[in-house]
Amino acid sequence: MGSTFGKNIRISIFGQSHSPAIGVVIDGLPAGHRIDIEKLSEFLKRRAPGRDEFSTSRFESDIPEILSGLKDGVLCGAPLAAVIKNSNVKPQDYSEIADKPRPGHADFTAQMKYGGAQDYSGGGHFSGRLTAPLCIAGGIMLQLLEEEGITIGSHIFEIAGVQDTPLDPVHVSQSDIARLQKSTFPVNDTESGEVMKSAISTAKKVGDSVGGIIECVVLDLPAGIGEPMFEGLDNTIASAVFAIPAVKGIEFGSGFAGSRSKGSINNDPFIYSGEKIKTLSNNHGGILGGISSGMPLIFRVAIKPTSSIYIEQDTVSFSKKENSKLIITGRHDPCIVPRAVPCIESAAAISIYDALLSSKIYL
Amino acid sequence: MGSTFGKNIRISIFGQSHSPAIGVVIDGLPAGHRIDIEKLSEFLKRRAPGRDEFSTSRFESDIPEILSGLKDGVLCGAPLAAVIKNSNVKPQDYSEIADKPRPGHADFTAQMKYGGAQDYSGGGHFSGRLTAPLCIAGGIMLQLLEEEGITIGSHIFEIAGVQDTPLDPVHVSQSDIARLQKSTFPVNDTESGEVMKSAISTAKKVGDSVGGIIECVVLDLPAGIGEPMFEGLDNTIASAVFAIPAVKGIEFGSGFAGSRSKGSINNDPFIYSGEKIKTLSNNHGGILGGISSGMPLIFRVAIKPTSSIYIEQDTVSFSKKENSKLIITGRHDPCIVPRAVPCIESAAAISIYDALLSSKIYL
Amino acid sequence: MGSTFGKNIRISIFGQSHSPAIGVVIDGLPAGHRIDIEKLSEFLKRRAPGRDEFSTSRFESDIPEILSGLKDGVLCGAPLAAVIKNSNVKPQDYSEIADKPRPGHADFTAQMKYGGAQDYSGGGHFSGRLTAPLCIAGGIMLQLLEEEGITIGSHIFEIAGVQDTPLDPVHVSQSDIARLQKSTFPVNDTESGEVMKSAISTAKKVGDSVGGIIECVVLDLPAGIGEPMFEGLDNTIASAVFAIPAVKGIEFGSGFAGSRSKGSINNDPFIYSGEKIKTLSNNHGGILGGISSGMPLIFRVAIKPTSSIYIEQDTVSFSKKENSKLIITGRHDPCIVPRAVPCIESAAAISIYDALLSSKIYL
Amino acid sequence: MGSTFGKNIRISIFGQSHSPAIGVVIDGLPAGHRIDIEKLSEFLKRRAPGRDEFSTSRFESDIPEILSGLKDGVLCGAPLAAVIKNSNVKPQDYSEIADKPRPGHADFTAQMKYGGAQDYSGGGHFSGRLTAPLCIAGGIMLQLLEEEGITIGSHIFEIAGVQDTPLDPVHVSQSDIARLQKSTFPVNDTESGEVMKSAISTAKKVGDSVGGIIECVVLDLPAGIGEPMFEGLDNTIASAVFAIPAVKGIEFGSGFAGSRSKGSINNDPFIYSGEKIKTLSNNHGGILGGISSGMPLIFRVAIKPTSSIYIEQDTVSFSKKENSKLIITGRHDPCIVPRAVPCIESAAAISIYDALLSSKIYL
Repeated sequence: MGSTFGKNIRISIFGQSHSPAIGVVIDGLPAGHRIDIEKLSEFLKRRAPGRDEFSTSRFESDIPEILSGLKDGVLCGAPLAAVIKNSNVKPQDYSEIADKPRPGHADFTAQMKYGGAQDYSGGGHFSGRLTAPLCIAGGIMLQLLEEEGITIGSHIFEIAGVQDTPLDPVHVSQSDIARLQKSTFPVNDTESGEVMKSAISTAKKVGDSVGGIIECVVLDLPAGIGEPMFEGLDNTIASAVFAIPAVKGIEFGSGFAGSRSKGSINNDPFIYSGEKIKTLSNNHGGILGGISSGMPLIFRVAIKPTSSIYIEQDTVSFSKKENSKLIITGRHDPCIVPRAVPCIESAAAISIYDALLSSKIYL
Repeated sequence: MGSTFGKNIRISIFGQSHSPAIGVVIDGLPAGHRIDIEKLSEFLKRRAPGRDEFSTSRFESDIPEILSGLKDGVLCGAPLAAVIKNSNVKPQDYSEIADKPRPGHADFTAQMKYGGAQDYSGGGHFSGRLTAPLCIAGGIMLQLLEEEGITIGSHIFEIAGVQDTPLDPVHVSQSDIARLQKSTFPVNDTESGEVMKSAISTAKKVGDSVGGIIECVVLDLPAGIGEPMFEGLDNTIASAVFAIPAVKGIEFGSGFAGSRSKGSINNDPFIYSGEKIKTLSNNHGGILGGISSGMPLIFRVAIKPTSSIYIEQDTVSFSKKENSKLIITGRHDPCIVPRAVPCIESAAAISIYDALLSSKIYL
Repeated sequence: MGSTFGKNIRISIFGQSHSPAIGVVIDGLPAGHRIDIEKLSEFLKRRAPGRDEFSTSRFESDIPEILSGLKDGVLCGAPLAAVIKNSNVKPQDYSEIADKPRPGHADFTAQMKYGGAQDYSGGGHFSGRLTAPLCIAGGIMLQLLEEEGITIGSHIFEIAGVQDTPLDPVHVSQSDIARLQKSTFPVNDTESGEVMKSAISTAKKVGDSVGGIIECVVLDLPAGIGEPMFEGLDNTIASAVFAIPAVKGIEFGSGFAGSRSKGSINNDPFIYSGEKIKTLSNNHGGILGGISSGMPLIFRVAIKPTSSIYIEQDTVSFSKKENSKLIITGRHDPCIVPRAVPCIESAAAISIYDALLSSKIYL
Repeated sequence: MGSTFGKNIRISIFGQSHSPAIGVVIDGLPAGHRIDIEKLSEFLKRRAPGRDEFSTSRFESDIPEILSGLKDGVLCGAPLAAVIKNSNVKPQDYSEIADKPRPGHADFTAQMKYGGAQDYSGGGHFSGRLTAPLCIAGGIMLQLLEEEGITIGSHIFEIAGVQDTPLDPVHVSQSDIARLQKSTFPVNDTESGEVMKSAISTAKKVGDSVGGIIECVVLDLPAGIGEPMFEGLDNTIASAVFAIPAVKGIEFGSGFAGSRSKGSINNDPFIYSGEKIKTLSNNHGGILGGISSGMPLIFRVAIKPTSSIYIEQDTVSFSKKENSKLIITGRHDPCIVPRAVPCIESAAAISIYDALLSSKIYL
């Protein structure tokens, strides 16, 4: 268990890296909304492997087949099921990791939990490949959010310590988002982007990997969405975002930096902007008491360096009960941050949309 | 809604800052365990106000009354309900904030969500006071975890940018934790602690506030606890921790710093330590794929500077529909980090214990 | 666990028969609605003991104290907590049942589940007394439903095999309901009511007990409320109704009798009634595919004869590990059907209101 | 929403009668158990159409394809997904019902809920065909229960008012169950079975339909499984059973008949049977206070006569906004009771197994 999410919208993700198929069932979708499959495919391409020099060479079309929930392209109220066949499987690549857990991977903890039953091949259910069905769900939620005028976008905030220009937390606009959504390497500052790319190239050359930070923004979310305490937008987004392998941290608004600030600086003054109340600054990141303030909702997510590297590593052999060495082969990205961008947006989308539906109850 | 937590253990927190009482109901507790009420009270004192020069002068005994769930001091299997009377209420302090939302507080978002019905007095259900019932639940879970040999401790990692010596993520021991639990200002390095205190004093003098970071560790959690994807230990801890007002970020293991590292450094090699498999370093913070590795589980939480400051701030008047000024009166901590320590431990305790119960299903 | 209910509205019931207090926390209530406490007390009186010659002589005022969730009598959006003190406790009455499980009671199964930790006194958490907090929740939901124009009423359909005139499933009206709500022994046919009462008297005289059936109707529930499959109105109502001790069966519409009918008779033809579509008959009981049809929602609940009787019964002694005899003393109703009426209405109210909120999401 | 079930085991059912496929995802399965696919197929055949003269002539192989969750036939801990292709679809049969709701079906309520978006073809997600994925889940749970020594069986208790000999609620044995499981028309008394069959034949001849009652028993369930109040075994089984179209009532133990009895008769005396405590009679049906007593768990379910009949019925035309007539064509069973048997067993299996897992937490 653990692969289900949501209160109003219930997402159930299934599949292993090398099982016949992976996919998702989404229960609780509102009837009557057209889903643009073309647009969904475009979104899925953003996380698909094989798009550039950095990503894994495992190429898969990853076009989802919709098994239910749509009638003539429109949501019919019944659960939507989508599957992606695992066509391009090379199980032989993973024969060794059944015995030797890869450092930084879930091989070891899965073994502790499931014993020999675990489908170790390709990381099984723990594979990054399982973010594809997450993105199917996310892509659909993004379309539904868009109907409500809510947009989600993100950029690579940092790779290997190289920073991009942050989004302006107060004035970030729809056009900023639109520009980022079109890019395969979404940054605000192209030059920083080039430095990031060369850091990835350098890591790739030596068989190493780098990590980074993604900054995500939700635009035009009305004030009043979310709940106090355990069902705040921050709680919910965090609980979705940590579903993505390699995520090790999340911060909202000024986050960790804000904790070093003072109340007089970190507090965001309220001000009338026409009829609407806004804040002058946005250190709160659009969430106060778990509830949206109407300001851009901003959070940043820390992505660790790809665990699969080509350098020899120390590990153990389960069978021999002794220390051992491991050289990982197979196909792996030296940096998964670019491909993680639509995954983070998907995690945001499913949690925001679910919270939005909860809020409709009381309007 | 939003004030309930847990899957096996279900915690329901109620109360407003100035309602007749606050409290908690805990359903799903295992029968037959003795609860040490003395020890629970000691734990609750760690978050109680009025203990030192820095905390708010609102003094309350905050001794919980147990209404149900115990028979002769032993859990009887029925839900445990505990209430704390709100005896020391000064509602007149808050007359202004009904009209003028305090910057950094949930006054504004609560108004957007609940309209005039919101109980604004003292922040209502959004008050930091509501962490008292959280700590009742947490204190009980800590005792139950201790029966299983699992300990949770934490220290003030940082206040106003002043850092304490971090816990050794590999070798942190029960005695380290025991020492921290006894302190009202738990730090590893007393000198750093003094600098932190003077930073708080300075802020207090000018009516300002400071924030900080708490580092929390879970010791002797067996490997194999937690679930993949949405119900990982990281997801669950995060979803509990963000219930505490003022929390703006969380990171596990090497977290944000780790995202600037390389795979070859950030990956933790596995090694046999006797019969047991450990990792040489602990950048993963005890969690891989959402599941415990058996290494110390370590996370850090960013606490923003107290929103209630005594310096005049810009805000709006709802009634006059115009920009306005606000000077907050009443009793407020210039830094809530020390009192937040047991709250973070409570959030960890309820999420870890709930995950532990889930894991028992499959043993 | 087990004492929490609901998806949007989350009800958490606590207390034992002889613990300091019993009560309920209701999370997820919409803000801004006035709760008529007077009316709530009137409703609670309908299940209170000591009202007539048949009910237990344990008299308790059972006036709930509201601890939170209300501001000036209006729901403020925070969880509502209500407690009833257990003032009139006679624990000595129950000394024997710790060792000798009462036939028909949960004493035995609680012992099997919780071992010696179970609070056997008065049946502990399994006591019928715990329907008081259920009725607090139910009474509040009934008021909220009434604001939406939805009424719930019921009558004693049968006691000891003596039948009342059934409600007309098509034409039952608000005034029928209003009349029943005012009665302490709600029947449509007073003469049948008298026969029922004499059956209760007869049972009482010999220390025996009788059971019966309650018929409940939900009026003016709009069509389209409820979900397919596992979250149908029938599923949800059933899962709430079986929370009431002594309930052993439930049927909707023509129910068990309908299963002996033919499709050509049991099917309810659709017909235009003005602009609205109705059914000519109402064998479906207002639910088709888990979703309300707009017709009166009708169900019947079987209540077993009170388990506590004054006749000597065969049981076992846990301590002596041998067969034994038991004569129950204390105060018990010879028939709990009349007092169960508001409990059934409460179970209906909480499940219907929760489903109604779910439906608002998609309107 | 509504098509998900379970707390530890989470079942998500998808598909419409005429969508590309139907299926189920089961999250939370324990790793390491072998699933006998052959045995699962045998179980599924019991609900498959086209097996005898009475069932619909829509023949489908209905062999599920397992997409994930199994490794070499053994549960690997990841969610199990299974799909059945909808190969034998005749959408033209249903062209009329988009406009004219079939009496007794969910066509009308689905229209009220989803408007024109509803996939009316074949009843969409409300089709009885969706019990196939329920039976996949049920069949798997039955195998897992069997590993724990728990068996579930049932017989046709009644069709068209013709009763079978009831199961002996105290002495029903594994061999009774084994015999029933092998039969395509499971009854205890073959002669009654023949009368039932002729009642079905008679109904079929005139284009009408009949209903009935299924009696289900869970054998060797240990005492102590289940929870008080809202999560009792009765609540949970009921909430699963009403997911099956045509179910209109459920009763446990002596049920409705017991409500006409007296306490002195309906109470089941406890008695030592060797070391074990049993009850002499079993009017409680194996459940007291929501928790299993260790006696056979027995319940009966009322199945209404098939709604689809070939006799002309009164209905309305949505488009013309007027009263109308409808003659249903297509393929429909004159009595679905025999095919509902494995569905009822499946509903029992998923709820019992989920409750069993919950209980493991506290052992």
